[in-house]
Amino acid sequence: MRIFIIIKIKIKIFWHLPCSYLLTNLYICSMLSYSVIGTGAIGGFYGSYLAKAGRQVRFLLHSDYDYVKNHGLRIDSCDGDFVLNKVDAYHSTSEMPTSDVVLVGLKSVNNHLLPDMLRPIINDDTIVVLIQNGIGLEKDLQKQFPRLHIVAGLAFICSAKLGPGHISHQCLGHINLGNYSAPQQDFVALLKDMLDAGIQAAEVPYLEARWKKAVWNMPFNGMTVALNTSTDQLMKNPATRQLIYEQMMEVIGAANALGVDALKPDFADKMMQMTDEMVPYSPSMKLDFDFHRPMEIPYLYTRPIMEAKMVGFDMPKLAMLEAELRFIESHN
Amino acid sequence: MRIFIIIKIKIKIFWHLPCSYLLTNLYICSMLSYSVIGTGAIGGFYGSYLAKAGRQVRFLLHSDYDYVKNHGLRIDSCDGDFVLNKVDAYHSTSEMPTSDVVLVGLKSVNNHLLPDMLRPIINDDTIVVLIQNGIGLEKDLQKQFPRLHIVAGLAFICSAKLGPGHISHQCLGHINLGNYSAPQQDFVALLKDMLDAGIQAAEVPYLEARWKKAVWNMPFNGMTVALNTSTDQLMKNPATRQLIYEQMMEVIGAANALGVDALKPDFADKMMQMTDEMVPYSPSMKLDFDFHRPMEIPYLYTRPIMEAKMVGFDMPKLAMLEAELRFIESHN
Repeated sequence: MRIFIIIKIKIKIFWHLPCSYLLTNLYICSMLSYSVIGTGAIGGFYGSYLAKAGRQVRFLLHSDYDYVKNHGLRIDSCDGDFVLNKVDAYHSTSEMPTSDVVLVGLKSVNNHLLPDMLRPIINDDTIVVLIQNGIGLEKDLQKQFPRLHIVAGLAFICSAKLGPGHISHQCLGHINLGNYSAPQQDFVALLKDMLDAGIQAAEVPYLEARWKKAVWNMPFNGMTVALNTSTDQLMKNPATRQLIYEQMMEVIGAANALGVDALKPDFADKMMQMTDEMVPYSPSMKLDFDFHRPMEIPYLYTRPIMEAKMVGFDMPKLAMLEAELRFIESHN
Repeated sequence: MRIFIIIKIKIKIFWHLPCSYLLTNLYICSMLSYSVIGTGAIGGFYGSYLAKAGRQVRFLLHSDYDYVKNHGLRIDSCDGDFVLNKVDAYHSTSEMPTSDVVLVGLKSVNNHLLPDMLRPIINDDTIVVLIQNGIGLEKDLQKQFPRLHIVAGLAFICSAKLGPGHISHQCLGHINLGNYSAPQQDFVALLKDMLDAGIQAAEVPYLEARWKKAVWNMPFNGMTVALNTSTDQLMKNPATRQLIYEQMMEVIGAANALGVDALKPDFADKMMQMTDEMVPYSPSMKLDFDFHRPMEIPYLYTRPIMEAKMVGFDMPKLAMLEAELRFIESHN
């Protein structure tokens, strides 16, 4: 009984210290605290998963705040449904304490709001994980916070927010973490903590992680909007199936031109196969389009196309898709 | 009075002889006879124009036959409206006599029907003018009729069929004629006859004529369908305006690779300016899409892209457009 109390005191004492300062073989030390900014299909899913596994997770909620306070967060998951009844919810980050880790699940079109949102909840050792689509996000955030520890989070997951506090997780769920500017020991502690919580996390070199995700994201997000369809229809039609493959090869070519040698053409085949095995899916940009929300064109298309162009690599089909999306957005 | 009768007899005698066999400085000899296959926005317009100028023009009509027999052909034209009251209409080419010139205004998706339709109305000297969109049409027809005299007709015209026997001519109207396999003297006689009838016709080297038209056709026909819009909207949006220009440059690049040196980049600027000055327009493919008719994808996209590829020139943006159109067609 006495020992138990000591451990509790230890937890109290060390709770806000970064895990890597402690002995990592102690289970209690590897339990990090999290804040979730953007409690939607992605942030809501991973945050709930971590909370279910016993992590302290603080959720930032806006319009859903009252509903979630009363009803909790409901996850309909292909891995088993669950409800998170007691949700540590906040209206604003100014009310939140700092956390070891901030998971950012915001749409990248709102990243101009991110500096002000982050300021109250980060300390010198906080890791900010940008679980967002696109290229160049970390660079832009680092400009605002030169000493911030930033990690890229690339989720391979089919999930959607169905309503207030209600997330549907249809399939997949693994997340690739790419270390942009965190001390490697802190990064490893984060990775371990997520694995301990049952999340299929993996370390992938930063640029490779970002571009790997773009291989799927750039063709499917835009094409489902441009042709007002879903992934399975694009895969079924021989003409668009071939087009999707060629667009994937443009992304791989761009990544190679930018020095990501690990990304080989066979990754396109792997992504094609993965998509064949997926449920018919509307990517996040398609949902944004359907619900007349701004689409993530700048970080998902403009930026990677520009970064590739700067090293002399053209992405003509994806540049055309960007133009089509800009036209569609101006009429949506 | 006596002279007039002699001339009439001469007309009777020579009516079915090709004009080039006669002295071309005789006005009566340069009046050629025409058959129009496909009495729509294009064939109907040029046929009516020729008939109005006194040419013998035979019109092939299907569903509109009775209406046109009773009400004639009505042309609402930016150059002045007119009605052709007495229309020499036919149900089938098997009832038609041969003509000096056959104007083909069919959609190219129906070109598999063309050999059987042409057989009854052509003789050794008949010129068949394919006023159709796309690349490779003459080559395919020549395979069926190795000795046929074929001319390409490229109409720069904004016109549409509004209803039975009712054509709206919105603007422009000139036609470039490219001689594919007609004796040059017969070709010149045709050109002169069309000019005499008030049509702004011009001789352009065959391949140049076809590819020149493709510079406008390939971007606008497909893009108005892909984005379900009209030419003016594509020109107004900076992203699609730039895309249209780049697609035009792909066509010019392909033409150059195929030996059409006369087609220079400034032709794209000219086409951009022409489109800026045009009324908001739905190209023929857009109308086909709107009315759930098959789209001219094979001759307008597949063939030119293939011909360019065979000489090592890629058209990535137009190849992507082709794939999108094939998807759209399979769902329309």
